Amino acid sequence: MKKMRLGLSMRYHGYHVAAWRHPDYVPGCNVDFRSYRDIARAAEAEKLDMIFFADGVAVRGTDQPEGALSHDMRNAELEPLTLLAALAGSTDHIGLVATASTTYNEPFHIARKYASLDHISGGRAGWNVVTSWSDQEALNFNRTENLPREARYGRAAEFVEVVKGLWNSWDADAFTHDKASGQFYDPDKLHVLDHRGPHFQVRGPLNSCRTPQGRPLIVQAGASNQGRDIAAEHADVVYSVSQTVEEARAFYADLKARAAEFGRLDNAPLIMPGITIYTGATQAEAQARFDELQALIDPLAGLNILYTFCGDLSGHDLDGPLPEHLFEGRITIGSGLLAKAKAENLTIRQLYESAAAGFTGRYIIGTAETVVDDLQHWFETGAADGFNICPPILPQGMADMSRFILPELRRRGLFRTDYEGATLRQNLGLG
Amino acid sequence: MKKMRLGLSMRYHGYHVAAWRHPDYVPGCNVDFRSYRDIARAAEAEKLDMIFFADGVAVRGTDQPEGALSHDMRNAELEPLTLLAALAGSTDHIGLVATASTTYNEPFHIARKYASLDHISGGRAGWNVVTSWSDQEALNFNRTENLPREARYGRAAEFVEVVKGLWNSWDADAFTHDKASGQFYDPDKLHVLDHRGPHFQVRGPLNSCRTPQGRPLIVQAGASNQGRDIAAEHADVVYSVSQTVEEARAFYADLKARAAEFGRLDNAPLIMPGITIYTGATQAEAQARFDELQALIDPLAGLNILYTFCGDLSGHDLDGPLPEHLFEGRITIGSGLLAKAKAENLTIRQLYESAAAGFTGRYIIGTAETVVDDLQHWFETGAADGFNICPPILPQGMADMSRFILPELRRRGLFRTDYEGATLRQNLGLG
Repeated sequence: MKKMRLGLSMRYHGYHVAAWRHPDYVPGCNVDFRSYRDIARAAEAEKLDMIFFADGVAVRGTDQPEGALSHDMRNAELEPLTLLAALAGSTDHIGLVATASTTYNEPFHIARKYASLDHISGGRAGWNVVTSWSDQEALNFNRTENLPREARYGRAAEFVEVVKGLWNSWDADAFTHDKASGQFYDPDKLHVLDHRGPHFQVRGPLNSCRTPQGRPLIVQAGASNQGRDIAAEHADVVYSVSQTVEEARAFYADLKARAAEFGRLDNAPLIMPGITIYTGATQAEAQARFDELQALIDPLAGLNILYTFCGDLSGHDLDGPLPEHLFEGRITIGSGLLAKAKAENLTIRQLYESAAAGFTGRYIIGTAETVVDDLQHWFETGAADGFNICPPILPQGMADMSRFILPELRRRGLFRTDYEGATLRQNLGLG
Repeated sequence: MKKMRLGLSMRYHGYHVAAWRHPDYVPGCNVDFRSYRDIARAAEAEKLDMIFFADGVAVRGTDQPEGALSHDMRNAELEPLTLLAALAGSTDHIGLVATASTTYNEPFHIARKYASLDHISGGRAGWNVVTSWSDQEALNFNRTENLPREARYGRAAEFVEVVKGLWNSWDADAFTHDKASGQFYDPDKLHVLDHRGPHFQVRGPLNSCRTPQGRPLIVQAGASNQGRDIAAEHADVVYSVSQTVEEARAFYADLKARAAEFGRLDNAPLIMPGITIYTGATQAEAQARFDELQALIDPLAGLNILYTFCGDLSGHDLDGPLPEHLFEGRITIGSGLLAKAKAENLTIRQLYESAAAGFTGRYIIGTAETVVDDLQHWFETGAADGFNICPPILPQGMADMSRFILPELRRRGLFRTDYEGATLRQNLGLG
């Protein structure tokens, strides 16, 4: 029976905007390596496929409503690749996926760092490719504003080509280590890339051997047309953000069809929508956990979430509707959120409460049975190959997975009882 | 009594060019995390101040004599910051210093990654600032040749200013975590850098808290006039490359005087010349270890070392003198090596054998008593605050330190018996 893929998203120690105000949240855990290590080990004990860190290279939104930023937890974090390398030394099986931007990096560095993570972890590294959307990030890298979307994706496509090329610098058996003759490697098994394109001129070779997985996995999350093409051609895993099963099925079908056009005959890329789960022994208990966090949402922090998508709404009645102009023109990010606001006729407060519950992603409140019914439905009707679990608060969210969700998934035969392979690629069934 | 500072340089698993051909060298250990981990733990068990990784962002010398590169071990390695992060999770006390180039990086990334390493390691991170000297590196980053020295150092000086500014983004007590009021941090304790200089425009703030050491340590190795000024103003530790005690004393006095001009009243920066030690229970045993490795030097690999400094010498008689033109004009790298060749009237083979023994650095052959006499002389006559040990081969070189050198240093009261503080800064006595 086909198994569901499961990842755990660990950024900020929780995906509920008010997680840090919960009585059980330990102040400072979001920059405490040992806390991340313990959660990673708990996820590995449950045989999850991977842990994942989203990322941005700025404190975003430093120009939002007065005081909002200081009420938001998203200011202090650890750089995810550095953190994952440290976690590589503290775990043995679980996949390690970190985000890095193609807009603000150089392909040689990215190829080398992820190759190193793949070596260090014994074949468990994955790179989540993003193009970065905020102007705040541009301001940290000699620019006054972000690149336009087309330019970002043009650069991203070439960036990924270069990185994959560098990962092919050496054949697996290139290093002969022939002590007698003095030959360290076979020159016929070295491939100098010599890439010359519009954005990058990179000679290579990479100063690192071929990695245990052949190359680190590539993960992609962009839902735009260009993002889908990059994912279809290159990605091993796609993190999607669908809010409804219909939307998810359409995305799934589209992406697999595009992948087939690129000649990919396996089931890759695997599609793993994000989901935030509120659960408990009873529906009432699950609802109480949800309500407890919702009651802790600071209106300033709520408006700060919406700021990215809607601009400054602090002058508006929180219990009134969203300004009409938000629904006009081309929406580039947060479109799912705005569609929901329109469809359900939400007030500003209702919208930020809805967004806060899963940092703009999908969330579900229910017992193990209810939640697993939902996941199984998505999994078995062509909407998902698995899920990227974005817990509302950590480590509690992982403990809830262990206590409620994973036993029920296993009871139904939907999730593994042990790792099948030695590498992330093998565990994901990607050959 | 003042204690000597000791670091262990671990690149390539050994600083002798033929290390990998030694019967005891395990093929592939240079990309094996566990092997580095075991050596780091051995160094920590001996209370060494730090481990260190040099670095370059290319396979250097891809245009040297036919076949030479494939006989050189310096092709395959792990990216040092990624490796050190993994080692941070496997050690508790020892300092972790990795090299990163100011010519091929962006200050925001460097500030953030080293801050993260400092958090993860509990205050043990150091950044070795280099400007990169090879054209091969330029070819991996959209350039056809390296920047001229002046331009590199101008960029480096501003780069370090920006990184230090970003590390000051947050006061130590900025994060209030006030669950009741919803205030995550005190906005008065956030400092937006807003740097606008000739090379960099970086707004900040850094999306990471102030680190356990206040900021990661800064290490510098440049011996040029501009390099010395950067070191004098900013560095906590300087890795020098002096070949003689007289040269070392002059460098030491000059650098401490420059530091005083920058208003630095403590003993910083600490100056730690590199040294490769061949030792044993007797002088004959030490000499035999040296001879064994020297006998393994492949002429192609020997010429490849010299290639960087002398160009292609493969058409010359190896047992004849160096071409005269090498001693003309401005020498920018390897000047100590060429000076030695001239002073001692060395043949090409003698020069590469001399260079091979310590990858162009100083080396010494002797019993514990002889070696420690030498180190003590440097330490007590104003030539060094300690040493950066570049072992000929690992892990054997670290085992020799434990067996011979460290007991003798401790017998004379020159080296610690336990760590004094919790952070690298404290252990180095830098307050």
